[in-house]
Amino acid sequence: MSHYYRLVVSCPDQRGIVSRVSSFIAGQGGSITEASQHSDLESGRFFMRYVILADSIGMSAETLRDAFAPIADEFEMDWALTDTRRRRRVVLMVSRESHCLVDLLYRWTADELDCDIAAVISNHDDMRSITEWHGIPYHHVPVDPADKAPAFAEVQRLVDEARADCIVLARYMQILPPSLCERYAGRVINIHHSFLPSFAGAKPYHQAYRRGVKLIGATCHYVTEDLDAGPIIEQDIHRVSHCHTPNDLVRFGRDVEKAVLARGLRWHLEDRVLVHDNKTVVFA
Amino acid sequence: MSHYYRLVVSCPDQRGIVSRVSSFIAGQGGSITEASQHSDLESGRFFMRYVILADSIGMSAETLRDAFAPIADEFEMDWALTDTRRRRRVVLMVSRESHCLVDLLYRWTADELDCDIAAVISNHDDMRSITEWHGIPYHHVPVDPADKAPAFAEVQRLVDEARADCIVLARYMQILPPSLCERYAGRVINIHHSFLPSFAGAKPYHQAYRRGVKLIGATCHYVTEDLDAGPIIEQDIHRVSHCHTPNDLVRFGRDVEKAVLARGLRWHLEDRVLVHDNKTVVFA
Amino acid sequence: MSHYYRLVVSCPDQRGIVSRVSSFIAGQGGSITEASQHSDLESGRFFMRYVILADSIGMSAETLRDAFAPIADEFEMDWALTDTRRRRRVVLMVSRESHCLVDLLYRWTADELDCDIAAVISNHDDMRSITEWHGIPYHHVPVDPADKAPAFAEVQRLVDEARADCIVLARYMQILPPSLCERYAGRVINIHHSFLPSFAGAKPYHQAYRRGVKLIGATCHYVTEDLDAGPIIEQDIHRVSHCHTPNDLVRFGRDVEKAVLARGLRWHLEDRVLVHDNKTVVFA
Amino acid sequence: MSHYYRLVVSCPDQRGIVSRVSSFIAGQGGSITEASQHSDLESGRFFMRYVILADSIGMSAETLRDAFAPIADEFEMDWALTDTRRRRRVVLMVSRESHCLVDLLYRWTADELDCDIAAVISNHDDMRSITEWHGIPYHHVPVDPADKAPAFAEVQRLVDEARADCIVLARYMQILPPSLCERYAGRVINIHHSFLPSFAGAKPYHQAYRRGVKLIGATCHYVTEDLDAGPIIEQDIHRVSHCHTPNDLVRFGRDVEKAVLARGLRWHLEDRVLVHDNKTVVFA
Repeated sequence: MSHYYRLVVSCPDQRGIVSRVSSFIAGQGGSITEASQHSDLESGRFFMRYVILADSIGMSAETLRDAFAPIADEFEMDWALTDTRRRRRVVLMVSRESHCLVDLLYRWTADELDCDIAAVISNHDDMRSITEWHGIPYHHVPVDPADKAPAFAEVQRLVDEARADCIVLARYMQILPPSLCERYAGRVINIHHSFLPSFAGAKPYHQAYRRGVKLIGATCHYVTEDLDAGPIIEQDIHRVSHCHTPNDLVRFGRDVEKAVLARGLRWHLEDRVLVHDNKTVVFA
Repeated sequence: MSHYYRLVVSCPDQRGIVSRVSSFIAGQGGSITEASQHSDLESGRFFMRYVILADSIGMSAETLRDAFAPIADEFEMDWALTDTRRRRRVVLMVSRESHCLVDLLYRWTADELDCDIAAVISNHDDMRSITEWHGIPYHHVPVDPADKAPAFAEVQRLVDEARADCIVLARYMQILPPSLCERYAGRVINIHHSFLPSFAGAKPYHQAYRRGVKLIGATCHYVTEDLDAGPIIEQDIHRVSHCHTPNDLVRFGRDVEKAVLARGLRWHLEDRVLVHDNKTVVFA
Repeated sequence: MSHYYRLVVSCPDQRGIVSRVSSFIAGQGGSITEASQHSDLESGRFFMRYVILADSIGMSAETLRDAFAPIADEFEMDWALTDTRRRRRVVLMVSRESHCLVDLLYRWTADELDCDIAAVISNHDDMRSITEWHGIPYHHVPVDPADKAPAFAEVQRLVDEARADCIVLARYMQILPPSLCERYAGRVINIHHSFLPSFAGAKPYHQAYRRGVKLIGATCHYVTEDLDAGPIIEQDIHRVSHCHTPNDLVRFGRDVEKAVLARGLRWHLEDRVLVHDNKTVVFA
Repeated sequence: MSHYYRLVVSCPDQRGIVSRVSSFIAGQGGSITEASQHSDLESGRFFMRYVILADSIGMSAETLRDAFAPIADEFEMDWALTDTRRRRRVVLMVSRESHCLVDLLYRWTADELDCDIAAVISNHDDMRSITEWHGIPYHHVPVDPADKAPAFAEVQRLVDEARADCIVLARYMQILPPSLCERYAGRVINIHHSFLPSFAGAKPYHQAYRRGVKLIGATCHYVTEDLDAGPIIEQDIHRVSHCHTPNDLVRFGRDVEKAVLARGLRWHLEDRVLVHDNKTVVFA
């Protein structure tokens, strides 16, 4: 099967970037199969994502990175060049609600998520059986409300041990400590059970019910230290009416949450999400 | 053409309501063409809307009301019985943005809104021509920011003179004084250029842009004294991405706003919206 | 936990139906928690669905049926009165594609589908493990293309043995024989991987791709002898663009299919779907 | 105000296209403000659209075209380079239904459609007043069913006289003769009142009603000689239920039709739609 290099760039916008980058790739014989670009006129920032057929270039990702580095320096790029042969390692964190976990596991078995699921970590033991049925290690790390530090130290150890590239909070319901957020900055994805910035607090569906809204939503975002305020990757909504009870809203919410999280994670794994200024560019 | 009576009821839920009401109508020979009911289990409140073929009942709306009153009393109903021959009189209030006004005028000419548009009132003169082309009186009532009272007194006079049943704030951009809100309680409809409760303040599309949301929305609601917190009638959203400028968001917003307002007004005019506890039941 | 009786009626429309039915229920002390009615003006047919708190009526479903029968006769009703304590028994039929099966199994464990899943029947053995993990019997019934009759005889035997109330073709990919369709008329639900009536034949997503459509869809319908032409219960769509390959369309299609099938089955199990004239009334 | 050049290219895919084109533009000092590319892996075709700040290039569109021509030849490009200062001239054709016409006229006054509306042509006289209120010439060209040729000759004369770049069939309800289709190939946009390929014939909403579908749709497409089979630009749907009459479907259909047509026309005017193999690439 073919493999690909993905070049992702964010830099100050100026003339000649595309020309330089595309000439460089053409000069190496590279065949571009996908190309996306975006100039943000407000921030003056330029974003690009190229997918290159690896076989068309006679060099490894590492060598290609070295060759590209001078151009990157010249244009002050934040950049990455990834090789699709190296699958991302993902750690899923869950609590007692299963809908997002089961959905991600299913999509993973259906080859919709190009990654290895290295481990599932939970503060409860409920999801052990379904996780292990999928052949994935399950770690039960109870969190003592009186002293959460030991639990998070253990979480950190497990995440490191799993050599995780990415952490997905699939309804984990615990706030990660800042140290972990920083260490995995831009690589922790959360699903928020609300159409942010509405109803940012607890029990959002009950809040929504009381307010009598006609739409409920969910938000997938990168986790930052500022709770629920990280860059939004994806959002979606579900229509509701007076007929629906809070339980119905919770049920609809599950469907929206899992769909939004799955899309967000998929795009992240395919290097389609670029972050700048607490916002995302998504080359979906 | 056939005309109809519409019976709309809200009361404490208890056994036998439907039986009593439907037996009463059947007893008068009434033919029911639409029936909607809702029991709100949380609040213990019952809502119903019946549409009755007027010709099937050999009496005027007034006589029918008198005949029904004892049942209404017995069940402590908030209720209304309207006759579709008596068209509601609507006053539209606008500022300088035309999209909602033009949309409502068009739908009115296309017979989508069963009402008379009695007048358009604006704090600017911009919409005079298109309004008068439709044969509708236009009143320019400038609002002096230093002293708004005279303008609102004039607005009130014009609304009274127009014998308005309903006021639509079609992007009026001024806050109505509490006296007017009270006098027309449950009959002033606003379109809010945001997916409430998000971005409740000014320039919501620019707020949305800065927050990097992936969906923008609009909310149609009844006006109460508590700004932007009245009962929500309808909401909808439009998907956006990093490609879209604040101007694009404003443009998408216009489309959502006019669609949501038109639906909300139509439902109001057809007695489909019942309010209780700052929420709506919409028999759409 | 409370249980309920559900009364579902379809009959020629005439005055007094609601009055008679609701008076009957009130006369038995019955508390109605949900009521839906629809008069189809074109066909002159009336549809209703009442949910009655069983404890409010001092009699069994059977006794209540006997008491109601004279009214049903008088109004020439097609009707059913079900007891939510008697869970429907569902047989799922699948082929090699797992998405609908896994989704239904998940929703079943999450209490979104009020039924017993009596068995899974497949012409392949692929889904045995996930099925049995859920504690459900799995029957592998290979279909010989040269002579399908023995397989379908076995299917029929298994369905009978399972005492199935309802058969769900969750991507079964085989055409059921007319005898089975007739025997379970109105109780076989199919998910069609297309926005019917578009692309009714094979490989609909590839057809859609070649036609360059901007939306793909799926259709949940009751199976009749006339292939793909049975009453539609639910449909939905997913937006696509030139960026998407046939594989992407298949992937989006899976999401639409499973969502649409789950909604359709849920509504069926809750007696929300009434069929008349090859169309459905869905009291969703 | 700034103006822009838009370069739109479709050609066989091969290495080095982006490099050559972007280097050419950079070599002229050109500043690219929008860039979109697409490689269709099935057809092996490459599509691109660049928007270039005209002031950044010290030459007219004509000179730039001459300079670019050799590259275009080398890569066998279908291509166009347009100047946003030269506004497209659009002729709208309507029959008696006003919703699409009124919507387009409104969007035109709201600066959402970057074009001149050169004329409105209709086989009826109904839309004269609203058209002329907008200051646009209105031509009433009755079509004699027994001999349509004279009418279409007159239409052709008027279209030529208006120096039209684009014809929009905004519910014209007449089939254009092949000669006109050919002459304006790729520049005649139709709104089809159906979710093509479903219900391709007459009265699609009544067809949809009879089939009991749960969604109705509309399709905006380029007109080709093969009726209703031209490249699809955009589609959208509206949800319906058993509650809705054929008239409701017609009303919902109007909303979908005008929204879909407005999007399609806007994209066309902004050179966002590229056609190949009876399909479109839409850089929306």
